[in-house]
Amino acid sequence: MSDPLEQLRRRLAALSDLRCAAELLGWDQQTMMPPRGGPARAESLATLERIAHDMFVSAETGHLLEAAAAELDGAAPDSDDACLVRVTRRRWEKARRVPSELAAELARSASVGQEAWVEARRRSDFDAFAPYLEHNLELARRYVDCFDRFDCAYDALLDDYEPGIKTTTVSALFAELGSELAALITTLAQRSIDDSCLHGSFPIERQRELVEGVLARMGFDRAGWRMDDAVHPFAAALGSQDVRITTRWDQSYFASALYGAMHECGHGLYEAGIADSLQRTPLGHGESLGLHESQSRLWENMVGRGRPFCDVLAPSIAQTLGSSVAPETLYRAVNRVEPSFIRVEADEATYGLHVVLRFELEQELIEGRLAVSDLPEAWNERVQRYLGLEVRDDADGVLQDVHWASGAIGYFPTYALGNLIAGQLWERALADMPDLDAQIAAGELSPLRDWLREHVHRHGAKLETGELLQRVVGGPIAVAPFISYLKRKLGDVYGLELTAQPRPL
Amino acid sequence: MSDPLEQLRRRLAALSDLRCAAELLGWDQQTMMPPRGGPARAESLATLERIAHDMFVSAETGHLLEAAAAELDGAAPDSDDACLVRVTRRRWEKARRVPSELAAELARSASVGQEAWVEARRRSDFDAFAPYLEHNLELARRYVDCFDRFDCAYDALLDDYEPGIKTTTVSALFAELGSELAALITTLAQRSIDDSCLHGSFPIERQRELVEGVLARMGFDRAGWRMDDAVHPFAAALGSQDVRITTRWDQSYFASALYGAMHECGHGLYEAGIADSLQRTPLGHGESLGLHESQSRLWENMVGRGRPFCDVLAPSIAQTLGSSVAPETLYRAVNRVEPSFIRVEADEATYGLHVVLRFELEQELIEGRLAVSDLPEAWNERVQRYLGLEVRDDADGVLQDVHWASGAIGYFPTYALGNLIAGQLWERALADMPDLDAQIAAGELSPLRDWLREHVHRHGAKLETGELLQRVVGGPIAVAPFISYLKRKLGDVYGLELTAQPRPL
Repeated sequence: MSDPLEQLRRRLAALSDLRCAAELLGWDQQTMMPPRGGPARAESLATLERIAHDMFVSAETGHLLEAAAAELDGAAPDSDDACLVRVTRRRWEKARRVPSELAAELARSASVGQEAWVEARRRSDFDAFAPYLEHNLELARRYVDCFDRFDCAYDALLDDYEPGIKTTTVSALFAELGSELAALITTLAQRSIDDSCLHGSFPIERQRELVEGVLARMGFDRAGWRMDDAVHPFAAALGSQDVRITTRWDQSYFASALYGAMHECGHGLYEAGIADSLQRTPLGHGESLGLHESQSRLWENMVGRGRPFCDVLAPSIAQTLGSSVAPETLYRAVNRVEPSFIRVEADEATYGLHVVLRFELEQELIEGRLAVSDLPEAWNERVQRYLGLEVRDDADGVLQDVHWASGAIGYFPTYALGNLIAGQLWERALADMPDLDAQIAAGELSPLRDWLREHVHRHGAKLETGELLQRVVGGPIAVAPFISYLKRKLGDVYGLELTAQPRPL
Repeated sequence: MSDPLEQLRRRLAALSDLRCAAELLGWDQQTMMPPRGGPARAESLATLERIAHDMFVSAETGHLLEAAAAELDGAAPDSDDACLVRVTRRRWEKARRVPSELAAELARSASVGQEAWVEARRRSDFDAFAPYLEHNLELARRYVDCFDRFDCAYDALLDDYEPGIKTTTVSALFAELGSELAALITTLAQRSIDDSCLHGSFPIERQRELVEGVLARMGFDRAGWRMDDAVHPFAAALGSQDVRITTRWDQSYFASALYGAMHECGHGLYEAGIADSLQRTPLGHGESLGLHESQSRLWENMVGRGRPFCDVLAPSIAQTLGSSVAPETLYRAVNRVEPSFIRVEADEATYGLHVVLRFELEQELIEGRLAVSDLPEAWNERVQRYLGLEVRDDADGVLQDVHWASGAIGYFPTYALGNLIAGQLWERALADMPDLDAQIAAGELSPLRDWLREHVHRHGAKLETGELLQRVVGGPIAVAPFISYLKRKLGDVYGLELTAQPRPL
């Protein structure tokens, strides 16, 4: 066999092209597609998945992987080629256990379920949605049954989103996180913060100007990016030169679009920062969803809701929205802690609890301990327990997220893991860049972006998240840095002594 | 082999899904993609084409076709199944002669060339564009070399766009058409028409309202359609339930967007009207580009520029653009004949000459009788000869169309063939529907749409264009009905006795 590595690369490039086409089909479904296009879209996505799956799991790919590994014997383990073979082999070992028809059906149901969810959520009709969730759970169980090396069903699902992590690890992290957050929320509930400066009447076009100004500072560039509206904001990348983010607009509350866009732009910067040499390979996207989310949350919260950036935001808000607000007032407003129904709009302290409750419920669902018909009640009970709120409307409750509708079970934990990782990276960045606060206050965000590119983005999926964290922060995912960051900030905002650990220098 | 027809259908459905994905990638490239996305897009399109081509031309497809044909022995030749096997076999016989790498390279170069053209046209820089055209011609010649059953190189290319037609047939039709049009233009040059009512300052948003009103009457429906902006307007369909049209806007001349949109909506109605039973099969799109163009031109010109519809347009224009114009004045203005540089904005009398000159030039290019470097001069000379105009700027000359940039050589003739077919269908529709003029004048366009759906749209690609015309108008493509229609209308507009044949009743 002549040059198996080159043959492998060609095969993987074609697969990357197929994934890219599927990514566009998905992006289009959520942003552009006319409603009646749904059924045909689901078929197209299923076909692309079937073809890509068949091509990937074929014995030919296995032979090429084996021959390429032999060809690379002695190569530096960090080289692009060595990582390519290692990561691809790991994915191939997993994928080849999944029948092609199941892979296609998962793709079809994800697309169909998403359309059903949009409609069910609009009408707040859980019963209309239930059969799609039942079907997705059934498929997820069939998927889990393809494997025998996992300790539990949920491990097999989680591994697709956060490779290598165990449910028990997540449970331990969440136990620590949950108790820290619950205590924090109880403490803060005694004081209140005025966030009236975020509410009012703000024409969308003026908000757009504000948001575009912020995104431009972050690195959004029309030559290689675009931004559209979506019901459930997301980011998609067709390679590093075609990055697409979405946001939604609320005429009465500009923070929704502003922080949503910063969040998605954080995802986009990750994809835009991946090395050219990794494009059109399986390494050309972010490695894990937790790591991806760490980027979006770092930009949204550590930067966007940090005191320094409020010095940039306040004058921009005055200029675009015509509202005069002091940076300090803005800083306090955007960090107000208050239990609420919607995860994506939750403050940083309550956010984690939204994730914990989903993590618990989806384990129960997949293991059959909770019936779909009992889910709304279980959801509402959990919201009452964790957030002290009574859900009156499924649209703001169990129907609020698209994930289960699109079969993404095991995905939610990565959101909270992303917060933890963001806490770790932020601590490291502050230590590495003594001028970071001053730079951000001056609106200079490129030093931070460059630091993230150097330490995270450029690697794409070359390193597992654990390995990358080991190199950058010297250890595995941990709760302490995030809690420390949060207590420091909220102590500042609420005028309370919360800080357990000193700010790193 | 169990049920080969069912197996064939499944295989063709997957191919249809792949084509659908490619269609979306192409649509997105021209409407949404950020500029730097171009290179990755070309690779994705090449990969989709390679995979689809390989799947289609495989021996397995051949065996299924053979077995399905045997299974269908005795079936009605007009049945969906019989047509499916017949049409697919014809395409398979052609496609299997083309190497997969050439098919992929054609797709890649089409995408790359299109991006290069946008930039070259913007800068009116033919030299920057020339290498892409050279490459596309080289690929076209390699493509032609795959076949031995065609009388000349151009026949092989033409056959992809207008299956079954010969260059000699087109030449004969164009000789007749050209001389009729030239005589007509000479006659009309003696009189002038005032079209000042079309010019002015018309905010795009008001124009959009006008256009959307007209499209809604035609059958555009947001649930299954969308409209976007494009440099070179086009229509795309991802099945009958997801139809996408594009238009461009000129603040100083509303006819550009209005008639452009009606034109593309005509294409869209064809795709939207194809029978459900043909979706996700090779029969699920329009058969030939000439037939497709007949639909766009019929709506744009026979309806849109006809006297009855001016009774609908005039009040709409008053309401949306605030310009008061009499229906008769509008009718005369939109039918003004005057040689001009841009094909897509040409009147109905000069339009055909734009096509004839391209038809001549591309034959010379493909046969090597004309060098790419000599093309601008040859173009300008031909424009002088046919239209009496001196081209001062390649952007308004040889660079105006995207077709050669995307490798579509042999495509242009179908535009003029479309006019001829539209003339034939229009004659038939008028004869079939005595109330058609009155319906159109009342803004009721659905009877015409239903007639077209019944006689043309629903068949998809079941019937070759010649066969369909035989059934609907009783003969092959002919020049006389179109010229007769044109003389009748222009005689009316110009107050001259041009009508050679009486209006059919």
